[in-house]
Amino acid sequence: MLSLAAGDLPEACFRRYLVQDYLFLLHFARAWGLAVYKSDTLPEMRRAQRLVDATLDVEIGLHIEYCRGWGLSESAIAAEPEAQATIAYTRFVLDRGLAGDRLDLEVALAPCVVGYAVIAAERMADPQARLDGNPYREWLEMYAGAEYQGLAREAEAALDEQFARRAGEGRLPSLAANFALAARLEADFWQMGLDAQR
Amino acid sequence: MLSLAAGDLPEACFRRYLVQDYLFLLHFARAWGLAVYKSDTLPEMRRAQRLVDATLDVEIGLHIEYCRGWGLSESAIAAEPEAQATIAYTRFVLDRGLAGDRLDLEVALAPCVVGYAVIAAERMADPQARLDGNPYREWLEMYAGAEYQGLAREAEAALDEQFARRAGEGRLPSLAANFALAARLEADFWQMGLDAQR
Amino acid sequence: MLSLAAGDLPEACFRRYLVQDYLFLLHFARAWGLAVYKSDTLPEMRRAQRLVDATLDVEIGLHIEYCRGWGLSESAIAAEPEAQATIAYTRFVLDRGLAGDRLDLEVALAPCVVGYAVIAAERMADPQARLDGNPYREWLEMYAGAEYQGLAREAEAALDEQFARRAGEGRLPSLAANFALAARLEADFWQMGLDAQR
Amino acid sequence: MLSLAAGDLPEACFRRYLVQDYLFLLHFARAWGLAVYKSDTLPEMRRAQRLVDATLDVEIGLHIEYCRGWGLSESAIAAEPEAQATIAYTRFVLDRGLAGDRLDLEVALAPCVVGYAVIAAERMADPQARLDGNPYREWLEMYAGAEYQGLAREAEAALDEQFARRAGEGRLPSLAANFALAARLEADFWQMGLDAQR
Repeated sequence: MLSLAAGDLPEACFRRYLVQDYLFLLHFARAWGLAVYKSDTLPEMRRAQRLVDATLDVEIGLHIEYCRGWGLSESAIAAEPEAQATIAYTRFVLDRGLAGDRLDLEVALAPCVVGYAVIAAERMADPQARLDGNPYREWLEMYAGAEYQGLAREAEAALDEQFARRAGEGRLPSLAANFALAARLEADFWQMGLDAQR
Repeated sequence: MLSLAAGDLPEACFRRYLVQDYLFLLHFARAWGLAVYKSDTLPEMRRAQRLVDATLDVEIGLHIEYCRGWGLSESAIAAEPEAQATIAYTRFVLDRGLAGDRLDLEVALAPCVVGYAVIAAERMADPQARLDGNPYREWLEMYAGAEYQGLAREAEAALDEQFARRAGEGRLPSLAANFALAARLEADFWQMGLDAQR
Repeated sequence: MLSLAAGDLPEACFRRYLVQDYLFLLHFARAWGLAVYKSDTLPEMRRAQRLVDATLDVEIGLHIEYCRGWGLSESAIAAEPEAQATIAYTRFVLDRGLAGDRLDLEVALAPCVVGYAVIAAERMADPQARLDGNPYREWLEMYAGAEYQGLAREAEAALDEQFARRAGEGRLPSLAANFALAARLEADFWQMGLDAQR
Repeated sequence: MLSLAAGDLPEACFRRYLVQDYLFLLHFARAWGLAVYKSDTLPEMRRAQRLVDATLDVEIGLHIEYCRGWGLSESAIAAEPEAQATIAYTRFVLDRGLAGDRLDLEVALAPCVVGYAVIAAERMADPQARLDGNPYREWLEMYAGAEYQGLAREAEAALDEQFARRAGEGRLPSLAANFALAARLEADFWQMGLDAQR
């Protein structure tokens, strides 16, 4: 069975994923910059600012370091063409954010922000998970770790707060549809990595 | 008493208003273009399209014709510097539309779209109103007329529909605050016309 | 040889293309609505308005009629999930338009607006083209026809005018890169249709 | 002679300015968040990020501290209604940034970012400037100081770099017109402070 947690995912898949995820993060930072613009209050602005900072100061750096460990230089990554899956996912999120309000933007971002935390925690708890000698251990521990889990909890709370302040029952269907489409695009993004083994 | 309905408003005030209202309409058309972009459904898109068309094909033409009747050429109007009141009002509306969703945009547009219909109907019903020989009669009859009143009713219905589909009780305070600020900017816009008599 | 002009393209491919192109057109109309917002001058606004109108009043109608001829109802089309290729292409264009200026938007739209005219004219001139009994004849004649060719010429002139007014030599590389990426996404969009035969 | 540098500006004027400048800064941070979204490259994104951080982590804090020194609490400032001059200026800048590209945004921001540095340096060099006992000394020294002057030089260099990369001679008239209008709105913003003495 192919798996990050079991450590038997072919390296080619993870490398493909890592490179496209670097390109993804550039647009993720743009999305949180947009959220700064779309803020109604100072605390809301500061939370978006923290996510811009976390992406540009921490996450992108970790990716570059990680990629280096897998033999990929930053210039090699930046020169890689963006995959269709990466374009579809990132630009869909940005369009939701521009056509709608900040809640629409954060809902479209949730499969990534919250999804990674849920999946990493699930994988770590899986009895088939194997950390010793697992080449993806660092990656799993980062997203299953307290810091990232805290960030995901904060994102969930922000969704609830915005729903109460800006939405209502009547908006659930469209928010759910956008979440579902973003989640499908997230799954397609992972599939693009898996396809690299063929 | 200064008044459009009584017909004793100094011409200088109305001329100042007309010229700035022409500049306003350019941004009003941009706002409805933005609403086309921010539409979730085809009927919603078509309604925004009709308002772009009404503004560019009808309203701006009427303004130019009207202005000509008052001795102002189109090039003279277009060369006029935008007043602070015009900039504040139009750009506030556009920013609400870009920072928020289409409901935020339409709420910020409501003091204009709906307000003109309400005020024109009120003025026409006022016992002090005098239509014979009133130089502003055409203007009053346009906004009090069935066509414009229908358009305003349609805008009200669209607000209700969007509120049900995208909002809830928790959003009322912010929508009301944006409506109130847009209405204040609309009043300031008229005040700019009145100030021309000094 | 698979081909629209030779008339031997499997119907399944064209049907797949038609349905996704309907979904594409909804975002195409949104893009021209955005262009209304991003206009600097009244004539520029009116050109974007004409393209919103052409899309919503003519093109979408033709698609629905066309689809009906191929046994697809409007509700069936509207219920179809958007393909990744459709999402990637349309949202890329919208993001270029929002992140950049109107020239960036129109350059990203050019592979569609201008490309269809060039390709349809080329196909019609191809000695292997066969119009008699070709099920795609109507489609080819629409894009090779004088009206659409005129619209494409107008779009080319608008690009030149905007380049002179808003850009310079230094901007060519980024405009060319965006055009190239949009053209790749347009090609991927057609490939999605071709893949339907498998 | 009324003057910050001479120290004889009535306190009421400066207080009015300070409060509205706090409200201005909220939109200034939004503008730099928008610039993060509108970035083409990672270094460009990081520069916008630094300005979001400088505004939210430093400038707004200094304003609050400053206001406290003048007897104004943060909640009192945040409760103050936005003046028409503040709305006109901030929303004009944001609209330029959304309708145009990042260069349009930065040109509209330049009268503030660069203008403060130029004016503060000029005032400090003025033989009539008087720092001893001048209640506005801290304010003058902040904008005339090396840190802020460096930031303004960086902004000028960024304008030149973007002009070379995204514009050309043909764009100068529209950039100059937008700069001139933003500078007029900046002057109107100061005038709003001066009007507080009446």
